[in-house]
Amino acid sequence: MTSEKEALLESEVRRAMDRRAESVRSRDVDAAVSVVAPDIVSYDVVGVLQNIGLDEYRKRATEWFSSFEGEIAYEVRDLSISAGDDFAFCHSLNHINGKRKGGQPIDMWWRATVCFHRIGGRWLIVHEHSSVPFDGSSGNARLDLKP
Amino acid sequence: MTSEKEALLESEVRRAMDRRAESVRSRDVDAAVSVVAPDIVSYDVVGVLQNIGLDEYRKRATEWFSSFEGEIAYEVRDLSISAGDDFAFCHSLNHINGKRKGGQPIDMWWRATVCFHRIGGRWLIVHEHSSVPFDGSSGNARLDLKP
Repeated sequence: MTSEKEALLESEVRRAMDRRAESVRSRDVDAAVSVVAPDIVSYDVVGVLQNIGLDEYRKRATEWFSSFEGEIAYEVRDLSISAGDDFAFCHSLNHINGKRKGGQPIDMWWRATVCFHRIGGRWLIVHEHSSVPFDGSSGNARLDLKP
Repeated sequence: MTSEKEALLESEVRRAMDRRAESVRSRDVDAAVSVVAPDIVSYDVVGVLQNIGLDEYRKRATEWFSSFEGEIAYEVRDLSISAGDDFAFCHSLNHINGKRKGGQPIDMWWRATVCFHRIGGRWLIVHEHSSVPFDGSSGNARLDLKP
């Protein structure tokens, strides 16, 4: 692949990732699912081992977005994008800073891996993996880590 | 891409994943790192947000492998492989069943995402993300989940 082609594909995926980040900031469920494939397999930060399919993805996004009140700050740091003709993957450290409904502050970093297929000329997310590590001694999720 | 080409690339990545699974079963650190790129970014089940580079990867693999005693059963379930010319990604639910040093049993499922670059004709892991979700109420890692 030429470096021009590689740069073009990477910029396409970057735009899809930017749309995704914007959808989080605006808590827009329709915008969030618009870049997601029908058969997505999602490994989420909380809950069950996996969520399969767009309906479950939409349900989780709706729950997550509606758990906040007021402005939220959302940052995607150290975003790495690897994009070929048909498949691409990204990883980053993500940060959210805001308030839960009820006023409880949330200030948390997690790891995100997002994988794409190019389907009908569009980059769609077919797999997503978000998590925090846990402390091997206590068994507690590490919600206090910073990059 | 022709379906023959796609099947060939997928089978190459599957072989790399098979070698990786074998390296876990035999707790062979050298075999485990032989399919890993020098600049790997790894998000591990426990510990810190990320481990960067082959030296940290080797250190973590050594710690993990040496934390078991006797036979371990290691299963990779629902392995999905997406492979293009230069980039590939896989996801699966992984299971380990055995004994920690000291005799404490371990029987645990986690989610794994593994991303490859084809470098010099070889598929090498450039990114790996392994995790369990946590319980949003208690903050505890969910080590009890089963697929």
